[in-house]
Amino acid sequence: MPLSEFNLIDQYFTRHRAKISGSPIELGIGDDCALLTPLPGEQLAISTDMLVAGRHFFEDVEPRALGHKALAVNLSDLAAMGATPLAFTLAISLPQPIDTARLAWLHAFSDGLFTLADTHHCTLIGGDTTAGPLTLCLTVLGSVKKDNALQRAAARIEDDIWVSGTLGDARLALGDYRQEWIVEKKYQSVVRRALEWPQPRVALGLALPGIAHAAIDLSDGLAGDLAHIVQRSAVGATVMMDRIPRSEALAQQPLSIQYRCMLSGGDDYELCFTAPPTARTVLTQISADLSLPLTRIGKITTLPKALDHANATPPSILWIDHNGVALADVFRGFDHFH
Amino acid sequence: MPLSEFNLIDQYFTRHRAKISGSPIELGIGDDCALLTPLPGEQLAISTDMLVAGRHFFEDVEPRALGHKALAVNLSDLAAMGATPLAFTLAISLPQPIDTARLAWLHAFSDGLFTLADTHHCTLIGGDTTAGPLTLCLTVLGSVKKDNALQRAAARIEDDIWVSGTLGDARLALGDYRQEWIVEKKYQSVVRRALEWPQPRVALGLALPGIAHAAIDLSDGLAGDLAHIVQRSAVGATVMMDRIPRSEALAQQPLSIQYRCMLSGGDDYELCFTAPPTARTVLTQISADLSLPLTRIGKITTLPKALDHANATPPSILWIDHNGVALADVFRGFDHFH
Repeated sequence: MPLSEFNLIDQYFTRHRAKISGSPIELGIGDDCALLTPLPGEQLAISTDMLVAGRHFFEDVEPRALGHKALAVNLSDLAAMGATPLAFTLAISLPQPIDTARLAWLHAFSDGLFTLADTHHCTLIGGDTTAGPLTLCLTVLGSVKKDNALQRAAARIEDDIWVSGTLGDARLALGDYRQEWIVEKKYQSVVRRALEWPQPRVALGLALPGIAHAAIDLSDGLAGDLAHIVQRSAVGATVMMDRIPRSEALAQQPLSIQYRCMLSGGDDYELCFTAPPTARTVLTQISADLSLPLTRIGKITTLPKALDHANATPPSILWIDHNGVALADVFRGFDHFH
Repeated sequence: MPLSEFNLIDQYFTRHRAKISGSPIELGIGDDCALLTPLPGEQLAISTDMLVAGRHFFEDVEPRALGHKALAVNLSDLAAMGATPLAFTLAISLPQPIDTARLAWLHAFSDGLFTLADTHHCTLIGGDTTAGPLTLCLTVLGSVKKDNALQRAAARIEDDIWVSGTLGDARLALGDYRQEWIVEKKYQSVVRRALEWPQPRVALGLALPGIAHAAIDLSDGLAGDLAHIVQRSAVGATVMMDRIPRSEALAQQPLSIQYRCMLSGGDDYELCFTAPPTARTVLTQISADLSLPLTRIGKITTLPKALDHANATPPSILWIDHNGVALADVFRGFDHFH
């Protein structure tokens, strides 16, 4: 079999050529462009992510997990906007040779990718395959009712700050792998699952429009991601650090490691959102309906005033530790250049 | 200056944060997703391309030209559908360190990119920046009236086959660079321009709906790309090889090199389209209006019948050489794995 670009796409990534009746996708893979007709009154939400081997994932990661995660991190961006997944494109650069091992890799990768795509009725509509260093680039398209999208700039003073799930396990797993610290054996499969099989909070995102104000997905770590909300909304925030939800596995670690993993670890793909206190009851109900913990960790405040004695910009987020001491926002978001 | 992912995007790629009145783009860079509301009655055309250093371009290529070409090859896909450019996302993986030289590179790259984007009113709406091997991935979105899109599967028997511009100069330049052959000094700047600064045929694409039937952009070489039209349309084709338009520079070369460059060279980014003979007059007028040569190179035919004496599939495209001899379709499209 000649292993050309064209039959790689045909064999592993082309599934639905026929027009699906009632679908907004009029034309999928196989032409110069895909064609998509959004529903009336709906906006398209669009996001793109690139994943590079050795930086976003280990080259030897289980390919099924990689296929899952590559799409999951993009669906997480749609969730943060309150958008319904619709379609995605995939560009993939693959090291040569395309031998039997690589074909098995592609089979498992596409299986992981499509299993998650099917769960969310998200159709692959276009792609590009090339030889080169192992790199993935996905662009997702979602649909959201006009004026319903959750934006980072929409936080209001007095809003509660909420996060879904638990934070820090992905970073905890990475540190164990890198021998920065040790995770007890009985927790290892749980924290590795958090790193390799993140679950995008699509259902939560769809439940939030009309209830929440601002939202963001936690891809770079709570400190950096909440800073985006605060900056774009021109507000401040106070976070009670002992309220930040963490797994039993992370709670075993010294506080310094807990903070590091929860605040600047990244790769959580939980949602952080703000909502008025009047929304607490309905959010508790949503949490129960989705079997997904939702935890209030703090409040949106006015932007702190500059101190008298210095020109320094005051921190916009106050992190209150378990002793009630306010720490400056020294925690950095995960940065793909650091 | 800390060279983080965030301020690289801010400094080089964020330009239009405010909502542009009347634009379908409601929200650009800076949130989890961009938001876009297509016009009523319009479809979205979507295409994605990945460009890898050392494979699609030389690592030391002039960055302004690279920025231009990265978007040009994507706009060419929109042109082939008859779609108006609307927006694009850019993911870029950059080798470290991000030093002064790389910043100058980014400045020139984004200048080349945005100059072409502005020409076509195509807005950057999202992106991702990461460290890694130099790789670009763009996804473009265009708008086309419902049922107006030019598709590969729409060729009809008796259609003329047309191509725009001249073919083969990009491959001719590459071969000169690789010392496969020599291009006379007086032609070098012209053919290098074809390789490095391809002009997407957006205006031609917009003129074709209602006139042309099938269309494709010539990115992989005429032989491979026309084969896509023929296969998807379940027709055959006859091409008069001496009619294929070529530059003065290419015409200096032996016929074998001419054929190789025109038929399997790739990187032309001209349009190949089919149209009924009744469209000849209007196409001649379009050619004059756009100052862009349009050349009839052959005909769409019925699919050739299988030969009696063999089980072999007959060639679906007959390439007639200058002696009137039909060659089998032995020319392969450019394949990024070969």
